[in-house]
Amino acid sequence: MKIVIAQLNYTIGDLEGNVQKMIEHIQRAEQDGADLVVFSELSICGYIPKDMLNYDSFVNRCKDAVEALMKHTSNLGVIVGVPTYNKAEYGKRLFNSAQLLYKNEIKATVHKTLLPTYDIFDEYRYFEPNTSFELVEFQGVKIALTICEDLWNLDQPILYKTTPMDELVKLNPDIMINISGSPYSYNHVEERKNRMVNNAKNYRLPLVYVNQIGAHTDILFDGGSMFIDAQGEIAEELEYFKEDYRFIDWKVGEAYPDNSLDYKDEDIELIHDALVMGIRDYFTKMGFKKALLGSSGGIDSAVINALAVEALGAENVTAVLLPSKYSSEGSVVDAEQLAKNLDCPYKIVSIKDMVDTVERTLAPEFEGLEADVTEENIQARSRGLLLMAMSNKFGSIVLNTSNKSETAVGYATLYGDMCGGLSAIGDLYKMQVYEMARYINRDREIIPEAIINKAPSAELRFDQKDSDSLPPYELLDQILFQYIEKQKGWQEIVALGFEEAIVRKIVKLVDRNEYKRFQAAPILRISNLAFGIGRQMPLVAHFNN
Amino acid sequence: MKIVIAQLNYTIGDLEGNVQKMIEHIQRAEQDGADLVVFSELSICGYIPKDMLNYDSFVNRCKDAVEALMKHTSNLGVIVGVPTYNKAEYGKRLFNSAQLLYKNEIKATVHKTLLPTYDIFDEYRYFEPNTSFELVEFQGVKIALTICEDLWNLDQPILYKTTPMDELVKLNPDIMINISGSPYSYNHVEERKNRMVNNAKNYRLPLVYVNQIGAHTDILFDGGSMFIDAQGEIAEELEYFKEDYRFIDWKVGEAYPDNSLDYKDEDIELIHDALVMGIRDYFTKMGFKKALLGSSGGIDSAVINALAVEALGAENVTAVLLPSKYSSEGSVVDAEQLAKNLDCPYKIVSIKDMVDTVERTLAPEFEGLEADVTEENIQARSRGLLLMAMSNKFGSIVLNTSNKSETAVGYATLYGDMCGGLSAIGDLYKMQVYEMARYINRDREIIPEAIINKAPSAELRFDQKDSDSLPPYELLDQILFQYIEKQKGWQEIVALGFEEAIVRKIVKLVDRNEYKRFQAAPILRISNLAFGIGRQMPLVAHFNN
Repeated sequence: MKIVIAQLNYTIGDLEGNVQKMIEHIQRAEQDGADLVVFSELSICGYIPKDMLNYDSFVNRCKDAVEALMKHTSNLGVIVGVPTYNKAEYGKRLFNSAQLLYKNEIKATVHKTLLPTYDIFDEYRYFEPNTSFELVEFQGVKIALTICEDLWNLDQPILYKTTPMDELVKLNPDIMINISGSPYSYNHVEERKNRMVNNAKNYRLPLVYVNQIGAHTDILFDGGSMFIDAQGEIAEELEYFKEDYRFIDWKVGEAYPDNSLDYKDEDIELIHDALVMGIRDYFTKMGFKKALLGSSGGIDSAVINALAVEALGAENVTAVLLPSKYSSEGSVVDAEQLAKNLDCPYKIVSIKDMVDTVERTLAPEFEGLEADVTEENIQARSRGLLLMAMSNKFGSIVLNTSNKSETAVGYATLYGDMCGGLSAIGDLYKMQVYEMARYINRDREIIPEAIINKAPSAELRFDQKDSDSLPPYELLDQILFQYIEKQKGWQEIVALGFEEAIVRKIVKLVDRNEYKRFQAAPILRISNLAFGIGRQMPLVAHFNN
Repeated sequence: MKIVIAQLNYTIGDLEGNVQKMIEHIQRAEQDGADLVVFSELSICGYIPKDMLNYDSFVNRCKDAVEALMKHTSNLGVIVGVPTYNKAEYGKRLFNSAQLLYKNEIKATVHKTLLPTYDIFDEYRYFEPNTSFELVEFQGVKIALTICEDLWNLDQPILYKTTPMDELVKLNPDIMINISGSPYSYNHVEERKNRMVNNAKNYRLPLVYVNQIGAHTDILFDGGSMFIDAQGEIAEELEYFKEDYRFIDWKVGEAYPDNSLDYKDEDIELIHDALVMGIRDYFTKMGFKKALLGSSGGIDSAVINALAVEALGAENVTAVLLPSKYSSEGSVVDAEQLAKNLDCPYKIVSIKDMVDTVERTLAPEFEGLEADVTEENIQARSRGLLLMAMSNKFGSIVLNTSNKSETAVGYATLYGDMCGGLSAIGDLYKMQVYEMARYINRDREIIPEAIINKAPSAELRFDQKDSDSLPPYELLDQILFQYIEKQKGWQEIVALGFEEAIVRKIVKLVDRNEYKRFQAAPILRISNLAFGIGRQMPLVAHFNN
């Protein structure tokens, strides 16, 4: 059987656009002589449309879109992902389904059994789990058709009672096909490959694994679809962060040579490509072209500036330098040099008058009180206000420049440097930001060395350094990683050998700043535990400090 | 059997505080000669601790807290809600459990079967559902002990395959006890009573229903615990929005007279009490005392001002009048009069100099461009900046003043009037805000009539009225209600008799402003579909406009 894997970038809710794109790939596959084209999970509507699924009007439009697609299936079968109604008397309204379309009919519909409801996933919010198992027959081939998580119950942790393939294998399938919406994280690529290889080996069946690419706000899909033979060799592995099309001439019983790519966990190239795609898709799918960012001469805004230029084109990214009386001369010079290296427009707008006016306005209220963090926040918020005004006037989106370390400990001003429509490096710890800067400079000096080498500073007071109030980032990042990604309590972290006073201070900062993160911009997710929907903490609570 | 219903206000994560409060109620019940005290769902840790549950350190502390409580159970039984580990080889890590403690032992543990995962609920994110059913015996009484949602599968919609009481009733229980964490919404009080009465009637068993009160950021628990006899009479109904304690002398087979309260759906008194509790709990549980708000002379800030004074005391609420050149004289006079009526401090801080300075600073960038929404946003953001600076300096929390109608259509400035730690009326449509103002004035004129009677205006341009760009609120609110609460598509709303052009315009405004709501303050929830975790829409998507 000749099978085409179509690894595409969908837009949530853009049913016409998604169907149009699928039709183009069906036509190409038809010309290539394929028997079957496979698209990914919920490809009709984009994965995942969240509470749009609560609208009957939306679900009905999905049904109409399948019908439009069906008209193009006279000569080959098409597997597509779509939400369908649950017609039983009990249960959730919908199933997360895969449908086989052929000769203008729905030949088969199967539903997802295992509904991920953890981290960024919330499928049981919408879907009833499948409980009955049948193969899908197409042109004499018996297909075990499953959806994403259905193949993830094989190794630890075993989250679900039922393992769908254990049921389906009893019916003697010839091949497994899995349509997927599996997002990227920097330690997920190898795990996903291993799991899929283990499925092939365990059931001694070939596997066609079809993922998608593209960013849906914060969630980044990386692709990496695969064809794995019954011995567990990865015969085909599709591109990462790019749409891809692969024609597979599969014969029962045939063994295929290993042809897998060699991406590894924590591969900086993949993280980089993920972020560039994330920025680009946010703008493209929102219908925007132009970005603004506050360029401070620091490493974070420099990395954002470079990534944004790659994603949107230099002419569409404006760096705004917003110096205050506390800004070192080096900051302005370095930020200017960066813009020149990137060949992107930049502007210098001093916040001095504005800060003076605010302080004068508030002088009667603040009489007799000492300067404190209030005055630092006034600077950050003045910058935010000016950036937002420019973005309003020029129809551009402000890119937020906070990293994960700062976001974690609340080292950022709400409505100040926390402004922005999208946080592109909010899931990178500070040390990862440095690594990204070095990667950006891999061929030539884009980010001036002066920016990489200077001591991190918010420059909100004279001679301020981040290290005045925070431990060194090398240490901070490790403790944060244990607390956030590893979900260890402070006592467990201390037991790893970190100093108790520092651990408790940091953990307390993280807890106390939930209220800030609640109002933060969406963060491109590249780790397996990013701030945002992946980490849902109460705001009003007593934490264990 | 003598049973005490303890309807308390817990703080999430404050295990010591929660346990201490429970011990006090156990001691009182002991003095009163009770056999059994019943606390509500997850009472040990507060419902619901969200991703705190992912920390083993947290779950272990819950276990320790149960042990501390157990020491006080020599003379009477105690039913408490607590997360416990799932020790099976598969499934989620935890159960949502109820434990019967007696004579310093855990006499019984039952797990929740039906895990709500919709709207604001996300329990399948954390918990494995129960699948085995046994009664709990205590002093010869056979108790069908269930947890909240377990009793909600009786009437439509039937969300779950299993109905726990259908299983438990086969074992011939004497009484049902349900420990609950059922939040308030203005159309939920009657429904909850009806469902619980239907359980008693259907199974011909008395029901002890124990709810909790208190706000956990946005979610407001109203209490209204009940004792219902086997005929379905509500013999006891506890207070709403207040801690309460009720001693029930229950005898098998005895009928009790109806003694229910007469709260109805959409009761403005309950909505009012919900919001006052919500504000008070936010501050108390956060450890703050003082609030600030921007007082514009409009109805929204007036209602917030009055509610905050009730919640926090007049001396703790400062109204800040922030007039611009566009503010009518009436606005300032009315806002002053309001503060005088409420006897709360107020300050007048003109934004004029600040706005002038911002415009001067940006003049070189904006040269040749016409004034537009940018200049309006500069005013709103200048107010936000000044309020935030004052809140920083004085250690107070800014109360956001947006209502649901504005929040829906994005008639608010991000980082401007959207500032604030808590949105107290963000779930009240504009027409409900008027109703609340009239309720606040029920005994005397607190909110000046001039504020209630003036045409709504943002006062960001000369002679601006909300009706310049929005349909009248009477109409707007109805369309929004259909789109948000009823989840109807625009075509369905038009079919109800609304004008297509208006419906499409409004629906489009709602969709296009997801990105703003994503960064909004938490909103006290009083409807059955509030913005926030109850409505999770994609930001980057094509909606059906």
